[in-house]
Amino acid sequence: MIFSDNLAALGIVLPAAAPAPVGSYVPVVRSQNLIFTSGQLPFRDGKLIAVGKVPTDVPLELAQQAAGAALLNALAAINAIAPIDGIKQVVRLNMFVNSAAGFTDQAKVANGASDLLARIFGPAGRHTRCAIGAAELPLNAAVELDLVVEVE
Amino acid sequence: MIFSDNLAALGIVLPAAAPAPVGSYVPVVRSQNLIFTSGQLPFRDGKLIAVGKVPTDVPLELAQQAAGAALLNALAAINAIAPIDGIKQVVRLNMFVNSAAGFTDQAKVANGASDLLARIFGPAGRHTRCAIGAAELPLNAAVELDLVVEVE
Amino acid sequence: MIFSDNLAALGIVLPAAAPAPVGSYVPVVRSQNLIFTSGQLPFRDGKLIAVGKVPTDVPLELAQQAAGAALLNALAAINAIAPIDGIKQVVRLNMFVNSAAGFTDQAKVANGASDLLARIFGPAGRHTRCAIGAAELPLNAAVELDLVVEVE
Repeated sequence: MIFSDNLAALGIVLPAAAPAPVGSYVPVVRSQNLIFTSGQLPFRDGKLIAVGKVPTDVPLELAQQAAGAALLNALAAINAIAPIDGIKQVVRLNMFVNSAAGFTDQAKVANGASDLLARIFGPAGRHTRCAIGAAELPLNAAVELDLVVEVE
Repeated sequence: MIFSDNLAALGIVLPAAAPAPVGSYVPVVRSQNLIFTSGQLPFRDGKLIAVGKVPTDVPLELAQQAAGAALLNALAAINAIAPIDGIKQVVRLNMFVNSAAGFTDQAKVANGASDLLARIFGPAGRHTRCAIGAAELPLNAAVELDLVVEVE
Repeated sequence: MIFSDNLAALGIVLPAAAPAPVGSYVPVVRSQNLIFTSGQLPFRDGKLIAVGKVPTDVPLELAQQAAGAALLNALAAINAIAPIDGIKQVVRLNMFVNSAAGFTDQAKVANGASDLLARIFGPAGRHTRCAIGAAELPLNAAVELDLVVEVE
């Protein structure tokens, strides 16, 4: 399975790079066979596509799309130092959801990223996951996620 | 020290498997010598044993028991792919506590899991830990935790 | 570049050890070439230097200083088992900010730690980062952070 072919079949073009970090850090670090990404926000073409709390400001479906957008930014960050076709296993997805009081469907939001990982990477995309309700997120983004992947 | 013997001596029977993920991910991934678990909720026999915010909905002692229950689910997840007797070191425990406004005893809640790790694994259970107050958690669970362990 | 020389040039003396854990865990674990620290609070000389929510109880500038103080505790924890001069790469900084409603400058708070990593470690300090708004933190600390570093 060629992951970049799957992306193309899904009509997805990865951003050329992850959005510029909003501070003095970098989008991605490789440590031996593991690649860690920084927390990614749902930027698309330089703009946040989902701002505020889920579900009061951002309905569930948009939050799921935001999870997908943040995931593509994480993959773009990885792809900038190691082509995604070389990913052996997606190890971990951490997902923080900017949660309104009483919102407990963080898992459904996270599925917006997890489902996309499954479609792109198949068995190599079967990851562990934490989904957490954050009180606030940087720039009032609706979601923030980071990835750890293993490469050859 | 045989960790499964310690479990038996404590009267603990691990669940046969971790609870089914509430989304498109898996309970556990091994990457070389590290095993990562997904965030585990305090399910016991298929039911959450602690729902809501600590301490207003869930008193501290129950939250500590919930931390222990979630830990056993994490160990069950690991045990399903690598017997826990092969654990060389518990590396990391991340603990999120569904916190009512003003609750700052996340560390005491987390001790419900950390103390159990010490009793089961002895020195090999001496882990690093983060304890954080979450605004909300999936399914309104009182706690969520994940583990990283090193195996032979 | 000798990192301990940079520390000295910055007038920084690392604490002799990380603050004692507030529970049954340890400040630091090494797993092969990675060192993980526990979540560190902004203790200095045994006292928290920033307590409460940012920015209502703790102004931004003090929160940034608190991030720096917590970072030094994390480095002290590492230094106790492996001299910081042996750090090959800072891999990950996770930063949780005790956030008042509507506070979305978690990244600016985290820069208090990230900027210090850059000054001490230069290119080896170029890390990935997650910055998250926590609902509450242990002991009502204003910030909590942890590090993962790679050593030789």
